[in-house]
Amino acid sequence: MGAINLNLILEAHLEIIKTKGGDVLHGLKSTDLGYEGFGEAYFSRIESGQIKAWKKHNSMTMNILVPLGDVRFVFFLKTPDGAVIFLFKDIGVSNYIRLTVPPGIWFGFKGISQSSSLVLNIASIPHNPNEVDRKNIDDIKFNWS
Amino acid sequence: MGAINLNLILEAHLEIIKTKGGDVLHGLKSTDLGYEGFGEAYFSRIESGQIKAWKKHNSMTMNILVPLGDVRFVFFLKTPDGAVIFLFKDIGVSNYIRLTVPPGIWFGFKGISQSSSLVLNIASIPHNPNEVDRKNIDDIKFNWS
Repeated sequence: MGAINLNLILEAHLEIIKTKGGDVLHGLKSTDLGYEGFGEAYFSRIESGQIKAWKKHNSMTMNILVPLGDVRFVFFLKTPDGAVIFLFKDIGVSNYIRLTVPPGIWFGFKGISQSSSLVLNIASIPHNPNEVDRKNIDDIKFNWS
Repeated sequence: MGAINLNLILEAHLEIIKTKGGDVLHGLKSTDLGYEGFGEAYFSRIESGQIKAWKKHNSMTMNILVPLGDVRFVFFLKTPDGAVIFLFKDIGVSNYIRLTVPPGIWFGFKGISQSSSLVLNIASIPHNPNEVDRKNIDDIKFNWS
């Protein structure tokens, strides 16, 4: 029992437009599903093979893009009946997708391209350490390799 | 005669925060000077030595960041008394600055790092071809080299 909405995390396939001098890569529009207001946009670089985990936003909706390299995102959810599940998704230039992540989900990410990758988070609120929970990487066991 | 406001284009020095696994690079907050609303965020890749020019937005305010590589931005302004001036600025990971460009200014840009660069535009309105004017690169003479 206890249905869980696996569509909690929205995926949107984004366009890469071939352009003379360098491609144009779509990101996010204010009219897109998943846009919950603009608070802050910032980048996280992730080096090849490195992992940043775990973090949970209690208020922020994240819109996540990877315009350079490829990154594995892992999400850890507890269902209403107490079961736990992991979801993971590889996104980046080879699979150019935007993820919309609502508040309340533990997440971590790993650089899976040979050189460093770049994550853009277009966040619904500005950075506020009071709305972030953190755990050490070993506090939630996941096979990252 | 005819004073011109050379501070029309705002510059903001942004922080790069050393972080285990990969740096965090600041972008734009809704509370920052230069934020004029969120319409769309998109990337333009610019290959080494390539130039994209000229374009003028008549309604959009651009907030421009270069989180990968280095890019020369060139702006072409007409003063109220009919004089023309060029402004240029090299921005990127070696000079991590955000530029806020109000509508009405012709601009172009060139990739000046050895590999490709990435420009993020956080635009005040969604893309709308009706508010964009374009000229060929040779229509406004500038020594790009």
